[in-house]
Amino acid sequence: MLECILNEDGVYLTLVEGETRTRFHAIWLRDNAWDAATRSADNGQRLIALRDIPQETRISAATLTGATLSVTFAPEDKTVDYDVSWLLQNAYDRTDAAQPGWTKSSVETWDAELMSRIPVASFASVSTDPAALKTWLGQIARFGFGKLADGPIEDLALMKVVDLFGYVRETNYGRHFEVRTEVNPTNLAYTGLGLQAHTDNPYRDPVPTIQVLYCLESSAAGGENMVVDGFRVAEQLRSENEDWFNVLARHCAHFEYAGSDGVMLRSRRPMIELAPDGELIGVRFNNRSTAAITDVPFDEMATYYAAYRRMGEIIDDPAMEVSFRLEPGESFLVDNRRVLHARKGYAGTGTRWFQGCYADMDSLNSKLAVLEAAEDAAQLEAAE
Amino acid sequence: MLECILNEDGVYLTLVEGETRTRFHAIWLRDNAWDAATRSADNGQRLIALRDIPQETRISAATLTGATLSVTFAPEDKTVDYDVSWLLQNAYDRTDAAQPGWTKSSVETWDAELMSRIPVASFASVSTDPAALKTWLGQIARFGFGKLADGPIEDLALMKVVDLFGYVRETNYGRHFEVRTEVNPTNLAYTGLGLQAHTDNPYRDPVPTIQVLYCLESSAAGGENMVVDGFRVAEQLRSENEDWFNVLARHCAHFEYAGSDGVMLRSRRPMIELAPDGELIGVRFNNRSTAAITDVPFDEMATYYAAYRRMGEIIDDPAMEVSFRLEPGESFLVDNRRVLHARKGYAGTGTRWFQGCYADMDSLNSKLAVLEAAEDAAQLEAAE
Repeated sequence: MLECILNEDGVYLTLVEGETRTRFHAIWLRDNAWDAATRSADNGQRLIALRDIPQETRISAATLTGATLSVTFAPEDKTVDYDVSWLLQNAYDRTDAAQPGWTKSSVETWDAELMSRIPVASFASVSTDPAALKTWLGQIARFGFGKLADGPIEDLALMKVVDLFGYVRETNYGRHFEVRTEVNPTNLAYTGLGLQAHTDNPYRDPVPTIQVLYCLESSAAGGENMVVDGFRVAEQLRSENEDWFNVLARHCAHFEYAGSDGVMLRSRRPMIELAPDGELIGVRFNNRSTAAITDVPFDEMATYYAAYRRMGEIIDDPAMEVSFRLEPGESFLVDNRRVLHARKGYAGTGTRWFQGCYADMDSLNSKLAVLEAAEDAAQLEAAE
Repeated sequence: MLECILNEDGVYLTLVEGETRTRFHAIWLRDNAWDAATRSADNGQRLIALRDIPQETRISAATLTGATLSVTFAPEDKTVDYDVSWLLQNAYDRTDAAQPGWTKSSVETWDAELMSRIPVASFASVSTDPAALKTWLGQIARFGFGKLADGPIEDLALMKVVDLFGYVRETNYGRHFEVRTEVNPTNLAYTGLGLQAHTDNPYRDPVPTIQVLYCLESSAAGGENMVVDGFRVAEQLRSENEDWFNVLARHCAHFEYAGSDGVMLRSRRPMIELAPDGELIGVRFNNRSTAAITDVPFDEMATYYAAYRRMGEIIDDPAMEVSFRLEPGESFLVDNRRVLHARKGYAGTGTRWFQGCYADMDSLNSKLAVLEAAEDAAQLEAAE
């Protein structure tokens, strides 16, 4: 039995269902009205600004009819209907104090155990079957990386991967870049040495949030790719020593790249990035481009270095690592705010040719949301 | 008279010059060595990781010779030379506690007073004269916006603006988008109504950090462009009421855009974004795409809405606004993390045709740094 109570002369109302009481402010309800004068019926954009809503807005009446709550606002004398389930889904009257470094329930952190169930799909199926694409993008959103098999072995095939969900982020490295063994490398990524797992381009701000690596030739032995979940690394660091987690989250590191003519990229960002309410939203880790760290107070620098060292050790721990070898026509994609990647050393004989590019997670998440909404709509229709 | 003292058995050293004492940890010095085994002489990338430096690193000896500090590290028994001025420039031994919302000294916030000195350059000069380009990019870095005059009046001329410093950020709106009056707009930006000053695409994460708007036709009366410094707005809000500044910085808003087929973009970010040490690094304000705000506790929601309202009032205050009319061939560029923009209403007769696109500030700052370094090098050469 659902009830609605007006409080404090209509400053807020309370939805009561058994023991559960959920409060909503008048100003919040008015601002989130979905009537045609407040929100565009076409595209959902809000047609008014907060300045158009009287500051002294109060609820003068509220009545429940089935699953609809009708609220009348004073002084506008405007009545708006709300879907009660929408209200409860968007309730903000809660007292959950998450610990710093929390992640969304849609995120699942992982370690080497994920080896047995690497998120992988076939290029053909994700290209033609929306359900397969939805599943694969959903895995990337959940795990921060995904592999594609059986793709075309042709120049710029990686662009077809990006076309599945979004747009290339062009940089000074071009719309894409070549990764081959070269004799006089200007960037360590082009050499045959193994690399420590890292996030790419932390010296860029905003950092590219997706990297795609696509294999076109792979006749040299070795050269496996490996990925490490930076979010799991941060969780592990926090569980070992909360001060270490905090010192990396509360102070900015500096990153820099000036290795090519005409490029001097610099950023000032933390190695562990939290939203203001503590959500873990990013990891930056790259020994090659870390510049002098000058924004940590002297008294905390020793702790900072201990934390930075331990973070690297956790990253290097084989128990954290998922590795795989890419054959021609195979590719993988990482959420570069979260998942570190590396290449193991490989033998000098034979060739190895990858193409890489950057893109962004917002388009990928958008595409995923659209596919999920379409599926929900189809299921609803089938059920009717 | 400069002196160097070893402390705590070589855990750190102190540079002493008169009353000024500047301490550097052994581990920091070792990690920031610039010898050829630590850093690539070619591109400056670090060749080793922290794991390659012994945890128990100490300074076993340190000697000053003129402007060079030679430090010997144990247990590696490795000696590295440092330029003392580089060390002092990168000193982290300081006790400056900046207040939340501080900005870099290279940032100058502004209000309507800037009308008399709008950052503007001629398209021809910035295209051909590196010094003119450096000045213009420097103004954008300082003020968060800049205008260009006397550019070509031709389709996609805006791409030539982006080519001056960087790369287009392609989105679902394309590599560029058209802004014209249309009869059945799917986005309010295409109508003849005035818009409240806003930042673009807060529902994107990462947000595009630059917007370019380029005028190709402008025969309708009105339709002036205006810009507001979001950093000044945040400073003003903080000076009026610190709680209001804090409540907008400490909680995430939600932004959403699902106005076109195949697009469901959502983000969860604060309206006032601070680095972990309180640096003001971003403002997001857009009434049209603000979704239900559900991550503010009930007890703070009334304060949140009061702060959000006041922030809008400050933005709407004509004393904050710089406005200008763009003629065909003129364009402007905003740092979209900082500067809000709007278009005033215009008359229905005549036409107005702009092209817009997104790009990113990291490339712009890189280009500026390169031009500054080239100028410094040239001056040094001339002085020798």
